[in-house]
Amino acid sequence: MRYKIATFKSIFFYTLLFSFLFSCSKENKDNRNEVVDLYKYVNPLIGTKGEGNTYPGAQVPFGMVQVGPDTETDLWETASGYEYSDSVIFGFSMTHLNGTGIPDLGDILFMPTIGKRQFKSGKINKTDKEIKQNPYSSKYKKSPEHGYMSKYNHIDEKASANYYSVKLQDYNIWAEMSATERAGIMNFTFPESDSSHIVTDLSHVLRWDVFWSSIRVENDSTISGHHQVKGWANDRYVYFTAVFSRPFDDLVIMKNGKKVIYNTTRFRSSLEASGKNLQFIADYKTRKNEKISVKIGISAVSAQGAYENLMAEIPEWDFDKVRESGVEKWNKELNKIQVEGKEEYKEAFYTAFYHTCQAPFIFQDVNGLYRGFDKNIHKAEGFENYTLFSLWDTYRATHPLFCLVQRERNAQMLNSMLTHYDQSVDDLLPVWSFWNNETWCMIGYHAVPVIVDAYMKDLPGFDAERAYEAIKTTAMNPNYDNVKYYAENGYVPFDKENESVSKTLEYAYDDYCIAQMAKKMGKIEDYKYFLKRAMAYQNVFDPVNKLMRGKDSEGNWREPFDPHAYAHDINKRDITEGTNYQYTWYVPHDINGLINLMGGGDVFEQKLDTLFTYNKDNLEKGSEDILGRFGEYWHGNEPSHHIAFLYNYVNKPWKTQKWIHKIMTTQYGNQPGSLCGNDDCGQMSAWYIFNAMGFYPVCPGSNQYVIGTPLFQEAVINFESGRKFKMKANNISDDNIYIQSVSLNGVSWNNSYIPYSEIIKGGELLFEMGPSPNFNWAVADDSVPVSLTK
Amino acid sequence: MRYKIATFKSIFFYTLLFSFLFSCSKENKDNRNEVVDLYKYVNPLIGTKGEGNTYPGAQVPFGMVQVGPDTETDLWETASGYEYSDSVIFGFSMTHLNGTGIPDLGDILFMPTIGKRQFKSGKINKTDKEIKQNPYSSKYKKSPEHGYMSKYNHIDEKASANYYSVKLQDYNIWAEMSATERAGIMNFTFPESDSSHIVTDLSHVLRWDVFWSSIRVENDSTISGHHQVKGWANDRYVYFTAVFSRPFDDLVIMKNGKKVIYNTTRFRSSLEASGKNLQFIADYKTRKNEKISVKIGISAVSAQGAYENLMAEIPEWDFDKVRESGVEKWNKELNKIQVEGKEEYKEAFYTAFYHTCQAPFIFQDVNGLYRGFDKNIHKAEGFENYTLFSLWDTYRATHPLFCLVQRERNAQMLNSMLTHYDQSVDDLLPVWSFWNNETWCMIGYHAVPVIVDAYMKDLPGFDAERAYEAIKTTAMNPNYDNVKYYAENGYVPFDKENESVSKTLEYAYDDYCIAQMAKKMGKIEDYKYFLKRAMAYQNVFDPVNKLMRGKDSEGNWREPFDPHAYAHDINKRDITEGTNYQYTWYVPHDINGLINLMGGGDVFEQKLDTLFTYNKDNLEKGSEDILGRFGEYWHGNEPSHHIAFLYNYVNKPWKTQKWIHKIMTTQYGNQPGSLCGNDDCGQMSAWYIFNAMGFYPVCPGSNQYVIGTPLFQEAVINFESGRKFKMKANNISDDNIYIQSVSLNGVSWNNSYIPYSEIIKGGELLFEMGPSPNFNWAVADDSVPVSLTK
Repeated sequence: MRYKIATFKSIFFYTLLFSFLFSCSKENKDNRNEVVDLYKYVNPLIGTKGEGNTYPGAQVPFGMVQVGPDTETDLWETASGYEYSDSVIFGFSMTHLNGTGIPDLGDILFMPTIGKRQFKSGKINKTDKEIKQNPYSSKYKKSPEHGYMSKYNHIDEKASANYYSVKLQDYNIWAEMSATERAGIMNFTFPESDSSHIVTDLSHVLRWDVFWSSIRVENDSTISGHHQVKGWANDRYVYFTAVFSRPFDDLVIMKNGKKVIYNTTRFRSSLEASGKNLQFIADYKTRKNEKISVKIGISAVSAQGAYENLMAEIPEWDFDKVRESGVEKWNKELNKIQVEGKEEYKEAFYTAFYHTCQAPFIFQDVNGLYRGFDKNIHKAEGFENYTLFSLWDTYRATHPLFCLVQRERNAQMLNSMLTHYDQSVDDLLPVWSFWNNETWCMIGYHAVPVIVDAYMKDLPGFDAERAYEAIKTTAMNPNYDNVKYYAENGYVPFDKENESVSKTLEYAYDDYCIAQMAKKMGKIEDYKYFLKRAMAYQNVFDPVNKLMRGKDSEGNWREPFDPHAYAHDINKRDITEGTNYQYTWYVPHDINGLINLMGGGDVFEQKLDTLFTYNKDNLEKGSEDILGRFGEYWHGNEPSHHIAFLYNYVNKPWKTQKWIHKIMTTQYGNQPGSLCGNDDCGQMSAWYIFNAMGFYPVCPGSNQYVIGTPLFQEAVINFESGRKFKMKANNISDDNIYIQSVSLNGVSWNNSYIPYSEIIKGGELLFEMGPSPNFNWAVADDSVPVSLTK
Repeated sequence: MRYKIATFKSIFFYTLLFSFLFSCSKENKDNRNEVVDLYKYVNPLIGTKGEGNTYPGAQVPFGMVQVGPDTETDLWETASGYEYSDSVIFGFSMTHLNGTGIPDLGDILFMPTIGKRQFKSGKINKTDKEIKQNPYSSKYKKSPEHGYMSKYNHIDEKASANYYSVKLQDYNIWAEMSATERAGIMNFTFPESDSSHIVTDLSHVLRWDVFWSSIRVENDSTISGHHQVKGWANDRYVYFTAVFSRPFDDLVIMKNGKKVIYNTTRFRSSLEASGKNLQFIADYKTRKNEKISVKIGISAVSAQGAYENLMAEIPEWDFDKVRESGVEKWNKELNKIQVEGKEEYKEAFYTAFYHTCQAPFIFQDVNGLYRGFDKNIHKAEGFENYTLFSLWDTYRATHPLFCLVQRERNAQMLNSMLTHYDQSVDDLLPVWSFWNNETWCMIGYHAVPVIVDAYMKDLPGFDAERAYEAIKTTAMNPNYDNVKYYAENGYVPFDKENESVSKTLEYAYDDYCIAQMAKKMGKIEDYKYFLKRAMAYQNVFDPVNKLMRGKDSEGNWREPFDPHAYAHDINKRDITEGTNYQYTWYVPHDINGLINLMGGGDVFEQKLDTLFTYNKDNLEKGSEDILGRFGEYWHGNEPSHHIAFLYNYVNKPWKTQKWIHKIMTTQYGNQPGSLCGNDDCGQMSAWYIFNAMGFYPVCPGSNQYVIGTPLFQEAVINFESGRKFKMKANNISDDNIYIQSVSLNGVSWNNSYIPYSEIIKGGELLFEMGPSPNFNWAVADDSVPVSLTK
């Protein structure tokens, strides 16, 4: 039974690996820099139920291939293509987005079947409305529309780092898959059948439209082709080459529902086709438990590029080697932070770490060619090209985390963003981009804090002058979202631009970042200029309500004004995905300035308290999918992510500790439904990773991390430099969540923040924890994190 | 007045050129190898009225760019996009097909306008039916649907080699254009206007569908983009970069009829778009007679490739330099055959020569990159890549002509065909291909005679072993059009394959060619095998009717049988675009065998006479567009092209002379309507070139040219080797059309053919002409051209 042999081989390998690691750990008991087996804590199913929008497929760290099951093809809610509550698998596609709010990818689907040739997926009896009414019901019903899809059960499903397997119940076929950076391999273990098939559906994609595709039967066991997708990414090219382990017994290409047959009066080939709706079906007669494998390379450049990727990365028919190589890569990544604590927290933590390594991902072929934003094919010279920049999300914690544990990659990501700038027809850095398309999703110019934060942290590997030119040009763009008006008048008026308050606030923060970089580079005029812009938040602060509020170009405040209202209509809203009450706190670079505007710490604290306790009657239209709610603090979306730390700024760090612990332990976990909101390409997860260690970058670019409360008794960051930064938390437990005292390298530490310089040089941060707040720790005037206005 | 200055500069240049040439001709009076001014005899308008389907646009020899006016966008009949009888110009597009029967290309249209911005072409009140009823009427009527199109008049139109100009009446704009291999330049001379525009319409293409396109405004005077076309070529990519001589005063991209505007809630750029239906409009305020130029590079690889092509070939703003460089190239080509005779014949001749240099054309960027049949981007290493192989037409006379006057290019065309074979998913040489698409048009495997003819004529520059493998593999293909059945059973049965008689006959001829190459290469087994297949024509010869006739797989003849019927229904016909009576003569390699089958020369001659005199009552359905009719001899289509020479084989060369002269002087000429049939990528024209010199390759691959009757008093072929072959015809006139005697290099020549070896080595062929036949010339048994069966 070949499937069992494979399984056996895997067991054999892991036994060997464990023995090796065990022997290592014996000899290097106290040297946590040794790679230990952490991949076992990764559970890719975490976040697949509900709003997390993660996917359980196989991927290597930062790999362009994310191969896994699609249980949904149409629903907006199931952006990654997989929802744990679904009971049907449509097939296994090569690409997926981690935790976005909008579906896309799901390219190049493969599905094994038994019986008559199927070229349509079939449909499930489910509507958006039904999903909303009963989101976790089983929705599958075999119907006349049944196609190649199959029922599956979680009992027969296994997802781990770089491995996914499942039994397809309708066909009694076991499918398992694994990946390299640019290729994937699938094993299908068939029952005995005269009519086994493997379908390749080029018309499949998540939610959007394939408007053109092509396929070629290269030889008796190889196909190649491409499809072009008009999706969230408006103009996307995906090429592939797939090699099957056994020559086809028979084959057929389907075009628009008809067989592509040799037609002597017209097209005289049944071996290739182009069109809008193409499938390929390979037919086999299989023995009982016969395993047929398919290995697939993908590329955004060409089918030839996909072939080269495949042959470079999966030259042999050795599934286990692919899997094990990926496990090794994952262990290497996961060991960058070694934690000790409760097993379920470790599962949540390492799965979070895993999520931060899913995007941005490599976007170039092994030969260095990639498709640029100008749609031309470029060669990456002197850098490695990455894509998927969910910047409104990831500038907050993901890229700051990269500045600690992915320094080399982060520099390459910066270079990729600078290349985007070079290729941009609008002379702009990326806003929200993937697969060489700018989606223009969300607001601000948050490539800026990503670049500035890396510069402030002396990240090597990118050209600072080039980067500065790009961030300044972006921030001076005369067209982008009324930045010009903002620069000239100090705010974005709501009568000229929607989401005007959020934009003003985020521009101001981004400008603070530019000022920091300008200052460090000695560009004093620029420093002054952008520093002034960084204060623009003051111009949308309504001193009567003591809240941020929309202002029109005549200087009139928005009327009527309900600070707790969630404005769904994009043309009427001043706030991006939130309320005025939530966005009021968005001055990460000048909290003290905000405190002053409000009239002092007491008002500030009282307003913060209200945020965490204000109970809205219901989920207002458009906000239904933002969960993780404590009053009006919504952890399920990014605008809230920095707010719980703000108590530190008014010398009430224990309130920060209380909320941070509550959020960590209720909004994260080790179950499919544990993620309270879209993982947003790792941002939700990066938030958790920082906080589990006890600190968080409230203001990237400032080189200060604000102290929350740790989750683990120990966490060691193993820097690429070889240095280590160790966090220890004595007496920590689910009750002992309050900081009693802190020492840094043996010296008492009474600040509610810790500077980057102390972390990167290595050292030990020791927390003494207890069940009640220490009202005396970090309450001195100068113990709070730095603000611009002090 | 800049337009006039340009004209003045042109006049100045040509005066200089003439002076130079005149001085040359004085000094080299008898040396015809000197380049003399022949471009003036080229009239690109010849063949643009009626069935010729030529185009009047600007092109350099074998250039990938054919830039010119489109007067029709939909009609099947107007395959080149230009019909002389039309009175409206839609715009000027970059690519055109010469003389095909099916429309395609017409890519990337530019059109200058005045007034309100127009992004639709507008429509003309014309239907297929109207065209047929009154094909040469003026059909233009200004209507509410009027778009950017304009009326024009032939008085205001000038077409010459590499130059086209016209006045657009609706706008009082003069347009002129010229080309290089991969780029074109257009001058638009505007009146004074506040609302001048230049429209770029990416949705424009001849007859078929643009299903995707993209456009980018690269800077204040440059745009780039592409479109993808599902047409006759099923999957075609055309990229372009266009640089305008003046920065845009304003601009707009139109997408699906709407302005692409900066949209703060979604796409935040008005400078780029992707979609199915895109136009770009550049706005200008123009002074009186202000000239704005646009230079455009194209590519099948990328917009970057198009840009590199443009910058390499048209780096400056010098229209005249582009034009003059092309004129120089044309003069170089045209001088390869120098003729003396009537001026109108010279116009017809050099325009015919011009047509033979329009296709196949270069299909690679200046950097060597090209799109292959596998859709991958390849680099042409060691050869130059060409496309547009209308092989069912051009194997007859175009490529044989290339074996004389385009030897180097023909070798590159062969290499391009071999590359096609390498890239073919079906392991086939091209059948009918262009722009990296196989269209599968027409029948047979006529890449074979093109390759074999070149090999038999010792053409250097290609690998014979590689070529032989390709032709043999093609002829042994197990799938293609029942070749397998034919190979095993000696004929194609009509119950298994349509056009079975034509296919049997053409396969047999192609196989004769393979046999010749095999023999010369010493592959004796292959020689015998293919020689046997070459006799397959005998298996579809009905000995009762003494005609070729469909036979089914049981051996039964087709019933009912009307040898003169034109079977329109493709599923019921045994003949390709003709009648059984026409195709009976298709045994070019064994006319003597056919004579024997018929029962001797007398029957053969009598049947030939009938062909030329048989009057069909009307144009049967499907055959309406095949004109040039003498009885059932239809010169407007290729199956008749070799038939008039067959009288030579029964020792009646004067009958050949009579018909050849008649065809030359009635079916060709110097008027727009002079071409009686589709030029078919130069085949109609190549027929004329050979015959104007007095001979024709009835059986390419045989190394014999069959003597017809010359048209010119003198014709000199200037070989690339430096050798010359001179044909002289004493006493020739429109009355003196009969050969009295022939001498070759001063020695009497009594054969009705002349071998290739005598021509290529140089020499002089002297005809003595007279008003009546010499019944004694070339009538000996061994004076007739060689047949396989002798």
